[in-house]
Amino acid sequence: MKFIIGKEDLLNGIRIVERATSQKAVQPVLYNILLETLENNQVRLSATDLVLTVITKVDAQVQEQGKITLPAKKINEIVSKLGNDLVTIEVEEGSTNVTITCQKSKFDIIGISASEFPQDVFNYEIDDTKCFDVELNPFLKGIKQAGFAAASYEVSNLLSGIVCEFNDGMLEIASTDGNRLARVREKLTSGIKEQTQLIIPSRTLNELLKMSSFIDEETVKICKDKSTIIFKSERILTISRLLEGQFPRYNQLIPSESPKKAVVNVSQLIAALERVSVMVNDKTSIVKMHFADNELTLTADTPEAGKSEDTIDIEYTDEELLIAFNYKFVLDALRIIESDEVIIGLNAPLSATVLKPNSEDDFICLIMPVQIR
Amino acid sequence: MKFIIGKEDLLNGIRIVERATSQKAVQPVLYNILLETLENNQVRLSATDLVLTVITKVDAQVQEQGKITLPAKKINEIVSKLGNDLVTIEVEEGSTNVTITCQKSKFDIIGISASEFPQDVFNYEIDDTKCFDVELNPFLKGIKQAGFAAASYEVSNLLSGIVCEFNDGMLEIASTDGNRLARVREKLTSGIKEQTQLIIPSRTLNELLKMSSFIDEETVKICKDKSTIIFKSERILTISRLLEGQFPRYNQLIPSESPKKAVVNVSQLIAALERVSVMVNDKTSIVKMHFADNELTLTADTPEAGKSEDTIDIEYTDEELLIAFNYKFVLDALRIIESDEVIIGLNAPLSATVLKPNSEDDFICLIMPVQIR
Repeated sequence: MKFIIGKEDLLNGIRIVERATSQKAVQPVLYNILLETLENNQVRLSATDLVLTVITKVDAQVQEQGKITLPAKKINEIVSKLGNDLVTIEVEEGSTNVTITCQKSKFDIIGISASEFPQDVFNYEIDDTKCFDVELNPFLKGIKQAGFAAASYEVSNLLSGIVCEFNDGMLEIASTDGNRLARVREKLTSGIKEQTQLIIPSRTLNELLKMSSFIDEETVKICKDKSTIIFKSERILTISRLLEGQFPRYNQLIPSESPKKAVVNVSQLIAALERVSVMVNDKTSIVKMHFADNELTLTADTPEAGKSEDTIDIEYTDEELLIAFNYKFVLDALRIIESDEVIIGLNAPLSATVLKPNSEDDFICLIMPVQIR
Repeated sequence: MKFIIGKEDLLNGIRIVERATSQKAVQPVLYNILLETLENNQVRLSATDLVLTVITKVDAQVQEQGKITLPAKKINEIVSKLGNDLVTIEVEEGSTNVTITCQKSKFDIIGISASEFPQDVFNYEIDDTKCFDVELNPFLKGIKQAGFAAASYEVSNLLSGIVCEFNDGMLEIASTDGNRLARVREKLTSGIKEQTQLIIPSRTLNELLKMSSFIDEETVKICKDKSTIIFKSERILTISRLLEGQFPRYNQLIPSESPKKAVVNVSQLIAALERVSVMVNDKTSIVKMHFADNELTLTADTPEAGKSEDTIDIEYTDEELLIAFNYKFVLDALRIIESDEVIIGLNAPLSATVLKPNSEDDFICLIMPVQIR
């Protein structure tokens, strides 16, 4: 194999696919990027952790066909330090000793044979009748808003997925880890007519978010092939296993009305939570919130260290209520809300509490309180 | 004890002294800051790790005299999150339960009695006949240039100190860890007439560097009291143990002339070293440098990963020489050099190599090569 490629083109390609390499692989080849020359003066770069696979194509001057895998970290480090010039990558057939040259720099890296790269991750079919277009920006915005509540368990757990439901111009995205739930609804100008629910691993969507700056188009194709989902743009294919099973019927959990309501300034509440949390017990992260008479008082304490208290003015005229939360869950939700004010819908000290922006945004976050003695 | 203090004043005071708190103390009080009210509406803040002590005074409205120690980390975290307003700090006599209030925020922190704070760190005397003035900027610049080579051993080792020698308007600063040596000489307009050599723990001088932005004056007083050194500015006292013993006669180690000389562009050499170091063996960090015929070729290798090579144009017409270094030592020296070019003075593969700027700066760095087979 031998090809000549622009340094920045190669570096972009590496940065796109390396997100899919494994963080802790059993097979060393999962730390590597597969480089393959194509017939039309292109090089294909692929990486996978067996759940998520990312493939991109880069223009190059191919002088000899071939393929090899190289450690993603090392090759990223090398290429990013090269001068901005043409880079030659060369390996003799049958060898795994790859030579990279650029100007007066030369590297010999020991790769792993392309034959060890898992081939079944390429076993997907793009059937255009199973594809539909999605505008990238509203989709990614929805992921940012409603994807944070997914559980950080291993990928086999359904709750580690983000539910994306397409339904005749509407998109609903939701996630929950059992303690909290986030849901956003948006209108799409493209999409799919028939109701389609996809449970996508949150890692997949988070990596898609991170690599989205490399996607030039406003619209990507989403294709489903059995238990696989494919995000297709001109240069990048993101292929991921789907999670299968019955996702909890989360919409049933969201109360339609809350008997008590507070309207709170978001940045004031964030600042107060950050202050009070200094004295939070690291094991429980509990902050107590006392709603009473247009005032919200936050308290936290740790037996050996001390306690903290903060009061902010709010709009609240309902009955007094003392309720406790893991303050990190409240902060996560508040930081997502783009409105100046949040409406907090309350019921009883152990009832799910609803946070939503005081705006037209169809975003809602549900947080389960913590029992306090 | 009760006093009222501006939030920013208090925060600055905390940030100045907290540098002296211990990172891993046996006595919990060494993590704490001692706060003491003074008669003249000031509060004194002190912290120590028993080697380095920093003391500062802050204006405050003292309503009740007293003293207490508070955990530096917690109090920094709390005060930095408070609104920019007056802060009240209060503790009842005999209690260690301190109340901090600001606007509608209130904290109760459990401190440690001031009586547990080590008192002997305050046992210094400032005898004006043993003090002399030093311009802060050239002194700190010298520390930055020639202090990096100190050993990072525990503070009891002489080589963990930085030698500062004052001699009739001249200042010489040097440090060495046995593998490398840095020395800078500067002219001072103030200083001390009689030759004075001080071996100051590098931690002390590095903390002084970091807190120097809080020192408003151009000149500080340096006072010696037995085995203690005191840096005195109007608001801040930095007190440190001196290291005692015979520092190696490092000037004898610096060759007056080198038989071979290369003139090398500093940024080109840094870039080449950074590239080549990708393939360095993590255990040895060895980069080989081959000087020959106006070219310098750098190579590195790790058996399992591969090898790297880079060539840059230099001025060199002497006999060929292959020499190897811990590349980190070379980078450290190059990054200090403020000139565009470095003069590398060479002798034999195992002789100390001299790096100095191709300028008027009286800075020199000596690096011991590594034996290669």
